Amino acid sequence: MTEQKATNVTWHEHSVSSDDRCQLKGHKGAVLWFTGLSGSGKSTVANVVDHLLHQAGKHSFVLDGDNIRMGLNKNLGFSPEDRTENIRRIGEVAKLFASAGTITTTAFISPYREDRDKVREILDDGQFIEIFVKASLETCEARDPKGLYKKARAGEIKGFTGIDAPYEEPENAELILDSDSKDAETLAAEVMEFLESNGYFSA
Amino acid sequence: MTEQKATNVTWHEHSVSSDDRCQLKGHKGAVLWFTGLSGSGKSTVANVVDHLLHQAGKHSFVLDGDNIRMGLNKNLGFSPEDRTENIRRIGEVAKLFASAGTITTTAFISPYREDRDKVREILDDGQFIEIFVKASLETCEARDPKGLYKKARAGEIKGFTGIDAPYEEPENAELILDSDSKDAETLAAEVMEFLESNGYFSA
Repeated sequence: MTEQKATNVTWHEHSVSSDDRCQLKGHKGAVLWFTGLSGSGKSTVANVVDHLLHQAGKHSFVLDGDNIRMGLNKNLGFSPEDRTENIRRIGEVAKLFASAGTITTTAFISPYREDRDKVREILDDGQFIEIFVKASLETCEARDPKGLYKKARAGEIKGFTGIDAPYEEPENAELILDSDSKDAETLAAEVMEFLESNGYFSA
Repeated sequence: MTEQKATNVTWHEHSVSSDDRCQLKGHKGAVLWFTGLSGSGKSTVANVVDHLLHQAGKHSFVLDGDNIRMGLNKNLGFSPEDRTENIRRIGEVAKLFASAGTITTTAFISPYREDRDKVREILDDGQFIEIFVKASLETCEARDPKGLYKKARAGEIKGFTGIDAPYEEPENAELILDSDSKDAETLAAEVMEFLESNGYFSA
């Protein structure tokens, strides 16, 4: 390393491209961006998809509240600004995983259209797959797995999406999953079919 | 999804563990945390290691200024607080990659010992491998690949590590690489040897 210029050349010769990483994994990198109300089934379906991908030998990963809100984004709250920054950071991390060749599922309410569109913009064409997990507020509130709707209705939680904060439905989602009438396994199979038929499983 | 409790059980049954992900990749997940002065050769060695890992069929990734400062951390500057937040976020992302089974190299000056130790703390035992790329300030300043030392000496850059901002050397680094006297390929081979002999290449 006496010749820094030569070393710089070495650096470029040695860098592994995103295509190289996809070749090693045998499939494309992609971001399966699940969006929908709390209780719509985003996390459930995302985790079933992740499991199916893993079983099929695909290199997958899940970004969700469990590993993001307690870690990377633990210094963010639920104000509109913090929600936007939350989604921005998740989008940037998903981009890194995609460029590593990983098929990454994200499961966040991500209520603002503009925030989701910004994630789409930073990814390569075809890498961002917006999946709207569509369930009526009635369905979600009836499920209420964490008792959050009850608290929101009681005013114990402020700014709760669907109650006193908006959810902006996707206008150009790659996939819309009918979570009112279908179970998680059926919906996950629809996602797998989409990936298969759109060439994501070849590098 | 009429029975939310049943669905929750499904969720847990379907979740893929970090061990499962490592099994698929055939090796452990780990973070190769390169630290050292600007010009010490961190990025160069990190990229050679990444290339060697990839050639050997290991699933690797690089986090460096190119993909972090322009993306995830583009809203951070170079104040002490922002440097700390910079390293915190990188540590959290590296943790996610490690739990996906990826061998991730990071190449950041990361001058503060406390910041690096915090990354070590959030990772599992053995996952954090601190690699001190040791080069004298004289060596680094002579290389000065981006002309940054010249600018710092001229007062055009403030708070430059090694000039008017501190660099705290690691006290318990897993590896110390002698970048004053050895070239990048030799140093990268030392890292590969460390990984091999410490069992990182088996799942």
